[in-house]
Amino acid sequence: MSGNSFGKLFTVTTAGESHGPALVAIVDGCPPGLPLSSEDLQQDLDRRKPGTSRHTTQRQEEDAVEILSGVFEGKTTGCPIGLLIRNTDQKSKDYSAIKDLFRPSHADYSYHHKYGVRDYRGGGRSSARETAMRVAAGAIAKKYLATQGIKVRGYMSQLGPIEIPFQSWESVGQNAFFCPDPAKVLELEAYMDELRRDQDSVGAKITVVAEGVLPGLGEPIFDRLDADLAHALMSINAVKGVEIGDGFAAVSQRCTQYRDELTPEGFVSNHAGGILGGISSGQPIVAHLALKPTPSITTPGRSIDVHGNPVEVVTKGRHDPCVGIRATPIAEAMMALVLMDHLLRHRAQNAEVRVTTPVLPQL
Amino acid sequence: MSGNSFGKLFTVTTAGESHGPALVAIVDGCPPGLPLSSEDLQQDLDRRKPGTSRHTTQRQEEDAVEILSGVFEGKTTGCPIGLLIRNTDQKSKDYSAIKDLFRPSHADYSYHHKYGVRDYRGGGRSSARETAMRVAAGAIAKKYLATQGIKVRGYMSQLGPIEIPFQSWESVGQNAFFCPDPAKVLELEAYMDELRRDQDSVGAKITVVAEGVLPGLGEPIFDRLDADLAHALMSINAVKGVEIGDGFAAVSQRCTQYRDELTPEGFVSNHAGGILGGISSGQPIVAHLALKPTPSITTPGRSIDVHGNPVEVVTKGRHDPCVGIRATPIAEAMMALVLMDHLLRHRAQNAEVRVTTPVLPQL
Amino acid sequence: MSGNSFGKLFTVTTAGESHGPALVAIVDGCPPGLPLSSEDLQQDLDRRKPGTSRHTTQRQEEDAVEILSGVFEGKTTGCPIGLLIRNTDQKSKDYSAIKDLFRPSHADYSYHHKYGVRDYRGGGRSSARETAMRVAAGAIAKKYLATQGIKVRGYMSQLGPIEIPFQSWESVGQNAFFCPDPAKVLELEAYMDELRRDQDSVGAKITVVAEGVLPGLGEPIFDRLDADLAHALMSINAVKGVEIGDGFAAVSQRCTQYRDELTPEGFVSNHAGGILGGISSGQPIVAHLALKPTPSITTPGRSIDVHGNPVEVVTKGRHDPCVGIRATPIAEAMMALVLMDHLLRHRAQNAEVRVTTPVLPQL
Amino acid sequence: MSGNSFGKLFTVTTAGESHGPALVAIVDGCPPGLPLSSEDLQQDLDRRKPGTSRHTTQRQEEDAVEILSGVFEGKTTGCPIGLLIRNTDQKSKDYSAIKDLFRPSHADYSYHHKYGVRDYRGGGRSSARETAMRVAAGAIAKKYLATQGIKVRGYMSQLGPIEIPFQSWESVGQNAFFCPDPAKVLELEAYMDELRRDQDSVGAKITVVAEGVLPGLGEPIFDRLDADLAHALMSINAVKGVEIGDGFAAVSQRCTQYRDELTPEGFVSNHAGGILGGISSGQPIVAHLALKPTPSITTPGRSIDVHGNPVEVVTKGRHDPCVGIRATPIAEAMMALVLMDHLLRHRAQNAEVRVTTPVLPQL
Repeated sequence: MSGNSFGKLFTVTTAGESHGPALVAIVDGCPPGLPLSSEDLQQDLDRRKPGTSRHTTQRQEEDAVEILSGVFEGKTTGCPIGLLIRNTDQKSKDYSAIKDLFRPSHADYSYHHKYGVRDYRGGGRSSARETAMRVAAGAIAKKYLATQGIKVRGYMSQLGPIEIPFQSWESVGQNAFFCPDPAKVLELEAYMDELRRDQDSVGAKITVVAEGVLPGLGEPIFDRLDADLAHALMSINAVKGVEIGDGFAAVSQRCTQYRDELTPEGFVSNHAGGILGGISSGQPIVAHLALKPTPSITTPGRSIDVHGNPVEVVTKGRHDPCVGIRATPIAEAMMALVLMDHLLRHRAQNAEVRVTTPVLPQL
Repeated sequence: MSGNSFGKLFTVTTAGESHGPALVAIVDGCPPGLPLSSEDLQQDLDRRKPGTSRHTTQRQEEDAVEILSGVFEGKTTGCPIGLLIRNTDQKSKDYSAIKDLFRPSHADYSYHHKYGVRDYRGGGRSSARETAMRVAAGAIAKKYLATQGIKVRGYMSQLGPIEIPFQSWESVGQNAFFCPDPAKVLELEAYMDELRRDQDSVGAKITVVAEGVLPGLGEPIFDRLDADLAHALMSINAVKGVEIGDGFAAVSQRCTQYRDELTPEGFVSNHAGGILGGISSGQPIVAHLALKPTPSITTPGRSIDVHGNPVEVVTKGRHDPCVGIRATPIAEAMMALVLMDHLLRHRAQNAEVRVTTPVLPQL
Repeated sequence: MSGNSFGKLFTVTTAGESHGPALVAIVDGCPPGLPLSSEDLQQDLDRRKPGTSRHTTQRQEEDAVEILSGVFEGKTTGCPIGLLIRNTDQKSKDYSAIKDLFRPSHADYSYHHKYGVRDYRGGGRSSARETAMRVAAGAIAKKYLATQGIKVRGYMSQLGPIEIPFQSWESVGQNAFFCPDPAKVLELEAYMDELRRDQDSVGAKITVVAEGVLPGLGEPIFDRLDADLAHALMSINAVKGVEIGDGFAAVSQRCTQYRDELTPEGFVSNHAGGILGGISSGQPIVAHLALKPTPSITTPGRSIDVHGNPVEVVTKGRHDPCVGIRATPIAEAMMALVLMDHLLRHRAQNAEVRVTTPVLPQL
Repeated sequence: MSGNSFGKLFTVTTAGESHGPALVAIVDGCPPGLPLSSEDLQQDLDRRKPGTSRHTTQRQEEDAVEILSGVFEGKTTGCPIGLLIRNTDQKSKDYSAIKDLFRPSHADYSYHHKYGVRDYRGGGRSSARETAMRVAAGAIAKKYLATQGIKVRGYMSQLGPIEIPFQSWESVGQNAFFCPDPAKVLELEAYMDELRRDQDSVGAKITVVAEGVLPGLGEPIFDRLDADLAHALMSINAVKGVEIGDGFAAVSQRCTQYRDELTPEGFVSNHAGGILGGISSGQPIVAHLALKPTPSITTPGRSIDVHGNPVEVVTKGRHDPCVGIRATPIAEAMMALVLMDHLLRHRAQNAEVRVTTPVLPQL
């Protein structure tokens, strides 16, 4: 494996399964001197937490995070920050029903072929449960970025067939869907209720925006800011598509429509989503991501067991009928991690060291 | 910077600007024993080469590649492979017209703010000229993958507003557009001629497919196969969106539509694009990418110079009216690099070393 | 920072300070199927543990390790292994005496200048306490290597002025010094007692040996096996020198003395320490490391405080009079981590994937 | 392989064999704005060049380096710097004599077992010829470090049995041995002549010193400055030992001798070699390296061929009777690369971005 670290200078490494004892993360590379407490992380963890509305899984997890290191007298020290979240609601239910079969659209089949063994309890490592640690680590990045005037926020821009035009950031925090239009919330609730009746699930589209980003972040030609964002966002469970700015709409646009002209007052449009040549332009960075429908539904589906025999699969348990609903804080976290990493990388080359302490004359 | 390397075990590092003396690459991590000559690379370089039809830039580059190391008696040795392509048609024209201004939708503005200085001749490092080396390196990966039964191919699936349904791989090689439907070629040519008359450019959509991929490639949770593909494809110049399988179409699908059921005869559909939980499932891997319109057009656009004064920009020179037309071999190369890297990573954990030589008894 | 990860494919990331709540580690890249329990780690942790003889620090730490993830039904799953050790004997003593001054030969001065802030309790992150996690992670590597016939062991080869010729591995486990000659133990004890009376400390030399290593490990030209061993061993607290094979003795040797000739029965000597051209030769790998004297002694020394004023420093507390005494298991762990990483890297290129499960026919 | 890159932010990747067409390197991560020309690199290349005295190999290589990219109008642009050195004196002699056998103390045996194939001409990739590119890349680092007041220099401190106490930097540049004591040069020459008569070779010890290094460089706990130096120096061909400061002499010292006390006027000694807790202290950084005797001698030695049959080996050709004689510029280069990389890493966390250009108001 060794694919559980993210970032080059601001590096997040995580471990932990859905039904194991705990999730754990190490955040390495946070600059010293940042005021930090577990409460800072808890806010975003609570936004992602299951069980907060009838539209998400009913699993009850406090997701209480403990900071194990790297913070002293309320500030980061520059040393790695260890984070721990104990799993508390991993029911010791009987998994014999799914132990030997591959649930369609789940990772069962591919994990089985990769590793030979797999922790089948609640999806093990492939469960979205691991995203709690992404959110915790992302909250550290967000807090640091805020000190630099950078703000990362997201919202749901589409739920199944329902498109949601952006109205206001205030609205986003006032409903269970991260919906930016208060007028749409009832429609979303009705749709979700219908879905539950149909024993089905649906996809969603999330939009994430970073404002206040200085121009210059991104390291062409491979570690471009857009490429690293695509990596980060596509690494979230259930994500199947990523766009920067106009994304796929640019395919049918002509340059005279698409190009963002400049005037002495600034750019006159932002089709590019704030990134030119893989480097931030100073405009807001805008990304969209597509999430597939949750595979865990109670409508029976065809599959096979590990021996190749046909079986019928019904996924019981406590599942999200739309994984997109809780995805907004996760997408924000991943964008924040990318920006944080690139801010540090940019500094490495375009900055002078700030000498804070007089240095001794030397022998 | 230090963003010019790609891959963890099969690592490609490149350098070179559009109008500098040469492009250079080092491909590190190729297994020993692979038959390899510069002709193997030249084939794909020729597919990407400019000036092969009236629909692409008229710059004339032979793109003749020289292998500098890593190959001995016709086979790779396991040592790094150095590659060199001299630039031959970098006209020493007068660049004073664009030296101090920012061409809209180009990387001029962001490079200027990142580095302070920039090589303005033909876009310097931000030019798509560097993709020649991606294609050369990708050809090595393709050749190795072929020995493992893995084939990576691509085609143009949309040009501006014209959608192109897949008909056959034969067609792809028989026209200048990598168009998989021979019946569509005249329509594409007519559209391109119209575009040229309008002094405009347009976007495109490319589809890449890998067949014969064993199940098990991908290293969750961050180095998932889909996340690394997104990184690779989004790092190509002008790309603004990446999809795996159904991509954004999954947003409005229900699980009962989307999920790929299994039977003893195999999967019955491939909405997932061959990747489950970030790991290959053994089905064909399918990715789509969106390219924006080429920013270099002769229709005047508003911009500013480095001092903030308003200017009118007209991009003269030899430019592609649709960068998507030459993007197919580049996208294939990037997908091949990702698969090659993950094949090696997978082997590291799921393989036993093949002992080919009897080892001496030791003291 | 972001310097808290070690290894490319078998990656160990650690966090935790001497007097913080806990030490934590994530071991990423362990192949699936290895039987593993916390007892496997505890054995080596106990060998390193403080307080086991009168010749080491009297701090009492159980160093009880908890496996948080990556192991299911007694076997590794290929997913990252989270490890946790709670600190239990971090006395809440008064640190005001050392808070603002730089103890000579400690890391106080350099940490202060690097980070501006520092956790001064017991040395914080710079304390050798972090090596507990190296030992825990190394024990996983050792267990896997053992399944491949590779055994990593170490011993003390010099304590201060007393050289200790190797006699037997049996002796190493039978005294508090990891001394390979039972006849030397009394001399060592007498020397340590004298040292304590003198309120002084002393350096030591440790030798580590790996047997059963297949030829071929090491990735020239930079990631040579010897270079990575040097990195690993020099990263241990207090280490100031590393040798492979004859090391510095080779300086005054002639080639006719030094070179290891070969016969059909094998190599006739091992001056090279089992590594030729940065790649293992199949002979035993032999490395030596030099540890400086512990800086924490009660004999007063001159120093300055953070304001530049002269002060006299006396380091009280529970300290090792020779850090080398507990260094053997740490050195073994680091050598095991390097070998494990290189075994996986070697496999990536020289192995065929072992297909254990029949793969479905695909659509 | 994929072990041919060095450094995390200032990354050097090289390729090329002893008798192939060329050596090539890509230096990624050099800050923009550094004045640079091929003459800057040529100076150090000439110091390392073979054939400059009768005490080194008589191979004639101009080692003329060409900069292929990353420099525009005489200054670095922040884009990767491509470097090319054509091999000109690779005699097409008959290698059938050594093709199938393993020369003792060479890398033949281990390369054969690692890769199955090997370029046997002049040692292929394992030849010290590759160090030319280390020197070229190191010269870029040295030039940048000089702008920050950091100077890296080295000298020979021992040749075979002859210890050479440091007298002056002036002397180092005035003889073929990098000998810091003019009074010792005749003795060294006499010793070398005797060695040649005896058809033998000998080891050497090199010392490298960096002055003007700011305190704070180094990223514990694994990427400590001393650990990365050990990695860098041990990766040089023929190096078998590395020491920081007093190194192995610290083993038999007591703390009261060893510790470097501080006074308001600075440190009173430098046993630590300028590194405390893996971080630079601001004192001169001092490292020593041990090089083994060159394995290529004309005194016959026993060995075997690839089929296991006993053979007698005599290495003819043009070889250095002491590889240490040309090692000083290589050691300087490697130390410069480490310091450069750590300077950039340090800046990433302890610096504010220097905004040189007014940024536009944004939409």
